[in-house]
Amino acid sequence: MPLPEKALIAQIRRLAESARQGQAGKSVRPTPAVLAGIGDDCAVLRLPAGNDSLITTDFTLEGTHFRRNWHPPEVVGHRSLVRGLSDIAAMGGEPLAAFLSLALPRNLPQAWVERFMRGLLRLAEKFSVTLAGGDTSESPSGILADIIVVGTAPKDKAVLRSGAHPGDRIFVSGELGGSAAALVEMRSRPRSKLDPRDYPRHFYPEPRVELGRILREKRLATAMIDLSDGLSTDLAHICEESRVGAEIESTLIPRARVGKPRREVDPDLARHGGEDYELLFTAPPGKRIPAKIAGVPLTPIGQITRRRKIFLCSAEGTRSELAQHGWEHFRR
Amino acid sequence: MPLPEKALIAQIRRLAESARQGQAGKSVRPTPAVLAGIGDDCAVLRLPAGNDSLITTDFTLEGTHFRRNWHPPEVVGHRSLVRGLSDIAAMGGEPLAAFLSLALPRNLPQAWVERFMRGLLRLAEKFSVTLAGGDTSESPSGILADIIVVGTAPKDKAVLRSGAHPGDRIFVSGELGGSAAALVEMRSRPRSKLDPRDYPRHFYPEPRVELGRILREKRLATAMIDLSDGLSTDLAHICEESRVGAEIESTLIPRARVGKPRREVDPDLARHGGEDYELLFTAPPGKRIPAKIAGVPLTPIGQITRRRKIFLCSAEGTRSELAQHGWEHFRR
Repeated sequence: MPLPEKALIAQIRRLAESARQGQAGKSVRPTPAVLAGIGDDCAVLRLPAGNDSLITTDFTLEGTHFRRNWHPPEVVGHRSLVRGLSDIAAMGGEPLAAFLSLALPRNLPQAWVERFMRGLLRLAEKFSVTLAGGDTSESPSGILADIIVVGTAPKDKAVLRSGAHPGDRIFVSGELGGSAAALVEMRSRPRSKLDPRDYPRHFYPEPRVELGRILREKRLATAMIDLSDGLSTDLAHICEESRVGAEIESTLIPRARVGKPRREVDPDLARHGGEDYELLFTAPPGKRIPAKIAGVPLTPIGQITRRRKIFLCSAEGTRSELAQHGWEHFRR
Repeated sequence: MPLPEKALIAQIRRLAESARQGQAGKSVRPTPAVLAGIGDDCAVLRLPAGNDSLITTDFTLEGTHFRRNWHPPEVVGHRSLVRGLSDIAAMGGEPLAAFLSLALPRNLPQAWVERFMRGLLRLAEKFSVTLAGGDTSESPSGILADIIVVGTAPKDKAVLRSGAHPGDRIFVSGELGGSAAALVEMRSRPRSKLDPRDYPRHFYPEPRVELGRILREKRLATAMIDLSDGLSTDLAHICEESRVGAEIESTLIPRARVGKPRREVDPDLARHGGEDYELLFTAPPGKRIPAKIAGVPLTPIGQITRRRKIFLCSAEGTRSELAQHGWEHFRR
């Protein structure tokens, strides 16, 4: 049974409060950062003094970002919030609060909303993020969510996309292509359900918040971005904002292992597939970068160049320009 | 011709920057509050020290909040941003920055986006609000916008919904029902275009930012909300959050004058019609409230009661419970 708007807000508020209760293990009070949350015209936040505020917004739209028959509601809730947390991670920030704008079609079962909220709030709790407000509406068609995440970083210390210099080395965290591989699989066999455990990076990606924060604290990263659109597109974003180019060693790109039994994904998926939510960053030539930070492997894959083009170098020594197929290309 | 996502972001960025340029009359630099805007993973804001931050999000969805054949693109852009600015006004805050999540159907003409952005940015300029970021996506169906507005208020001074006390008088700004009257008119004659000048509160509502700020500064309001859902529903929000009731004098509710020639709207529209974006607030019994603040008339319409019900009193002295027909009821 679908919920009218007022009941929906009450339900979200109740779920958000009981999540906070579980977190604190006692009575519900706003967290120190959130003075007033759901139930007023605005949320009132008290952000830490002497810090900058980070704000990011990300749509999660049925038909564009997920399909109801491919993605369980908990997965949709988890992935909606990951998009924002990962943006905060990419600045080296700490997430504090989230806002959810949610528009639902009239015929949506109430259980879908409850399971969606469960997936979202479980991840929020894990990162001590308070759901502090949002908007609800009837959707003319399909489930529509927009997640806003507010975070913080010490003054002038947020890691931008624009800080890469020629000579900087380029690193990625984790392995790439695992999320896109699930989409390829689902598209080729639309009726069979994938086991989320075989494709964890697609169904339950972890935002690299701790890694991002450590890279910022230890001043290891000159520029950083999260891999939401795919390596080729996101590297181009760094190059554009930093007014530089790059050379990537094709064989160095770490490819995810997916499915049952596990197999490495196609190199094209690792180059262009999106929504892995790993971090891509550049480091000054002299800096030693550990092989792992916060349990996440880091792999050098190339370097920043003065010439404003992006090249892919093969094991045989050939060099070709890296096209930005981008994620859009795969998703459709 | 529709725009692929990257071109769309570039276009929005260009329009936002040229709006800022117009504002400053010189070269484009981020405003003091916005250190990094469109073009990074997050926007970086430096909010004024010693203040609280206010955050609000509001959907504007084709088919739910507007229709393309009724509302010109500039109007949709203006009204999208008004929703957020009005929420900031209702806290007595100052708006600083806005974020736009925008999902567009593939076949949308580029001119629509340009005109939408023009309406939005014109209003942003007027209130010195910087468009600091957002998200873009392809929409599976219809135009989808979510606007986030970030504002500020001195520590602990934001006016909440929860501060009303029995005995407080209840005031509204401006006149009510003018926005809903336009909808009623368009619904009854779907093919004829209304002249926006005949229904200004529907097509180009002004958010009551200055009024809200002055009410907060002079400590005139104990509780405040903006009239987006309609008087009956929004008054119920104040009563619920403040755990009080109210009595409203039916004849005192100021009714908008609309159309050509001007005529007063139906009393039911003034009681229940939404999207007027006027302010509803309560004031302590002893406080003198001016007849006008910042050029906007203020009208006392009733008082807060201990008994947690809302009554409408007629000129004849009869009293009936005020149903919350709410806005949803009219909009469909």
